[in-house]
Amino acid sequence: MEVFFNPSSVAIVGATEKPGSLPGIILKNLLDMGFQGKIYPVNPKYKTIFGLPCFPSIPDIPNEVALTVIAIPASFVLEVVRQQAQKQIRHAIIISAGFREMGVEGIEMEEYIKRVACENGIRILGPNCLGVLDNYANFTTSFLSWERVSYPKKGSLSILSQSGAFAIALLDLASQEGLGIAKMVNYGNRLDVGESTLLPFLQNDIHTRVIAIYMESVDHGRKFIEAAKSCSEKKPIIALKVGKGAAGIAAARSHTGAIAGNYAIYRAAFLKSGIIEANGLEEFIDGVKALSMQNPPKGNRILIVTNGGGFGVIVADHCSESGLEVPIPSTQLKERLRSNLSAFYVVNNPVDLTGSACDRDYHMALTACMLESDEYDAAIIIPLMAPQGMTTKVVDLVTDTMKRSGKPAVICTVGGAFTLRIKQLFEDREFPVYPSPERSVKAMSILLRRRILQEGLNRGNYTKAKVTKSDWQ
Amino acid sequence: MEVFFNPSSVAIVGATEKPGSLPGIILKNLLDMGFQGKIYPVNPKYKTIFGLPCFPSIPDIPNEVALTVIAIPASFVLEVVRQQAQKQIRHAIIISAGFREMGVEGIEMEEYIKRVACENGIRILGPNCLGVLDNYANFTTSFLSWERVSYPKKGSLSILSQSGAFAIALLDLASQEGLGIAKMVNYGNRLDVGESTLLPFLQNDIHTRVIAIYMESVDHGRKFIEAAKSCSEKKPIIALKVGKGAAGIAAARSHTGAIAGNYAIYRAAFLKSGIIEANGLEEFIDGVKALSMQNPPKGNRILIVTNGGGFGVIVADHCSESGLEVPIPSTQLKERLRSNLSAFYVVNNPVDLTGSACDRDYHMALTACMLESDEYDAAIIIPLMAPQGMTTKVVDLVTDTMKRSGKPAVICTVGGAFTLRIKQLFEDREFPVYPSPERSVKAMSILLRRRILQEGLNRGNYTKAKVTKSDWQ
Repeated sequence: MEVFFNPSSVAIVGATEKPGSLPGIILKNLLDMGFQGKIYPVNPKYKTIFGLPCFPSIPDIPNEVALTVIAIPASFVLEVVRQQAQKQIRHAIIISAGFREMGVEGIEMEEYIKRVACENGIRILGPNCLGVLDNYANFTTSFLSWERVSYPKKGSLSILSQSGAFAIALLDLASQEGLGIAKMVNYGNRLDVGESTLLPFLQNDIHTRVIAIYMESVDHGRKFIEAAKSCSEKKPIIALKVGKGAAGIAAARSHTGAIAGNYAIYRAAFLKSGIIEANGLEEFIDGVKALSMQNPPKGNRILIVTNGGGFGVIVADHCSESGLEVPIPSTQLKERLRSNLSAFYVVNNPVDLTGSACDRDYHMALTACMLESDEYDAAIIIPLMAPQGMTTKVVDLVTDTMKRSGKPAVICTVGGAFTLRIKQLFEDREFPVYPSPERSVKAMSILLRRRILQEGLNRGNYTKAKVTKSDWQ
Repeated sequence: MEVFFNPSSVAIVGATEKPGSLPGIILKNLLDMGFQGKIYPVNPKYKTIFGLPCFPSIPDIPNEVALTVIAIPASFVLEVVRQQAQKQIRHAIIISAGFREMGVEGIEMEEYIKRVACENGIRILGPNCLGVLDNYANFTTSFLSWERVSYPKKGSLSILSQSGAFAIALLDLASQEGLGIAKMVNYGNRLDVGESTLLPFLQNDIHTRVIAIYMESVDHGRKFIEAAKSCSEKKPIIALKVGKGAAGIAAARSHTGAIAGNYAIYRAAFLKSGIIEANGLEEFIDGVKALSMQNPPKGNRILIVTNGGGFGVIVADHCSESGLEVPIPSTQLKERLRSNLSAFYVVNNPVDLTGSACDRDYHMALTACMLESDEYDAAIIIPLMAPQGMTTKVVDLVTDTMKRSGKPAVICTVGGAFTLRIKQLFEDREFPVYPSPERSVKAMSILLRRRILQEGLNRGNYTKAKVTKSDWQ
């Protein structure tokens, strides 16, 4: 698989300097990114492209080639694959659309290509896809304009996506949320390489810490479960399965020709293999962010610290709904809090520092509850920035205390420009920030779910059908 | 009630020019906003404040006064109320904290004030609150620094909130979402004026079109239901009830001393009075936005138009979950779509215009489905902006077509800076934009819910316990 992400040499079939041509954009992107491997443009019409020598056809390239990138009209693709077989090039990324998703004729073309590939030991990614992005190898086959989509920074999240539009949106959202990307793969019609082949590769990829999968269908049921189980023992996998109800299943069929299948089977497979399932795009990206930035808590006893009483109440409400406990502090802990905090404050859970709170009060409360006592496993912290006592210093005070405690925390804060600066500062320190109480609770419950699934896997208890609060009791 | 929002004259008790003093900030805010009524600072220490003549005490003011604003320490408040009784001032907004929420002593102080107020026909807002903001009278008693919280533009949303922090956050969020504000009231401990008094006033307020309520508890059960029922026949009311589960109820008690009570009773009351209940802050603000910008649909047949197949699938999934129908187009309509659209596109529901879509295709699809046929009641439109064929023109093409159809639409689009510009343009034209499929579906189902509740009220069917999909069949 490594060759798809970091090829020593790549042939770009159909490359031109003409603006708007896909192979041209791919070549230009590669040059702009500073990809270090050899690049061979292939096009009978030109001698050079962007200063690189251009070859009339693949067999004309005098050196060894590791990978071809094919982004020409569908009807010409088979011939290119034949040529690369002749030159013993073992990998191809087929960007071109116009295959299976177009009906019978397209399916036939795919079958021909598959046969040639099998006979010659060629692995294929695509067709009908964006291909890959490897942020550490500076390699991508994407034909996006990076003016419209933010180019992601280096990081530890890898994305597997059947849908191209979804992969793009996820890159864009990740950038917005301050998440760095390791690898992105969009396999489209999945003629050959799919989730089951890519998961074992990502399992051993040193840059990947968290894996996010968008799926309408799965390539090989049993193989997928084995691969996912093994991978999720090491790294969290979070999945968004779409095509659940009747309307969605019908929509998925006309999208990628995918048979979305019985959703109950997918749910069971996710549980067996330790995959965390997200319900909706927002929960997906929120969960990815939490898993990328924080470790799972050891239990479900949550402390809430707030300077807006109403927000504390909403968080407490959603904790109850999600099976997170909000235990009140012991008498001893309450006394310690009272001796350090203003008499106005409400010493309970939530700890309500009220609108009079200043930065130091967060430090006080968290030190007493998270560092000096062991009554809580994790914290949901709500620093609203409207009151005058709150400054940007709250970020260091909160994150330093939580890091010393070794326990995870998520932040909820709501507001405009000033609040967005605070969000940025927290996330630079790897503390995820959510713009609503319910999303912060959901993120915390995804962290907890990771822990529960992990323990399930470690106990060899793969068949547990349902993980509930009682797992903790 | 009008006097609380647009007083002909107001006395600011304890006003100073000192930075950081609450009465001083309130006075400064009023002057900055260009409030047109008479302002009388009251403080024995000064002759003038910010150039205005200052009076030693309330009885020293030579003219009639409509309203006092009291933001001095709790123990002095009773005396001020006595003075204003003497001068026959019939309205007071008590900003000061340190009452009921502090325990027995505070409750006693409130009771004394209440007695004086009753005996002298004084209406009181507060204590422990931000008071009001009236965007058309340029009047506010808020002591916020508008550097940290965006000042809201004029608009048609009015907010009632028990929690001050929540009221602030909502103002800030509304600004972010491009929503204008008519009035905001935060009544804190609710010694006198609460929801039941304010709803009839807002029902007849010409600037208010949509009402958002944050509540931990309600002031008078029966009176509230009557007021809300009457009001919601004219204007949509959306409520966020907090303090639902055990943890939340406990938290609410230490927040405003509110007895959050049995949640099931609240749910029934909301249904009886035609209030739309939101589950969580995000659904609350999303619903407010939808109700402020679009009319409810006549039925639940939803068309989905997308240029990202995967997004169409997720929207369809969530529609199924929310009782929204996603019917496939009739043969006739399919043919009309096919004759106008590229052969690549998927003519179904979702209409998938694929990554090759350009602006005009949205116009084509919506004209055929929403304008020239009557198979759909509303549309969820997904214009992803990454593909090159998409430009800002899509905004006019979509909104013009939908306006001509007379049917509502919500927009879902996901991405970075370029997408945020598109969001702004859509919302300038009163089409609400949501950053995830599930939120766009939820917003549409809130619009539908408004219609269902409205019809329930019109039919006099107030006791219906549950409104389901079958209401439409």
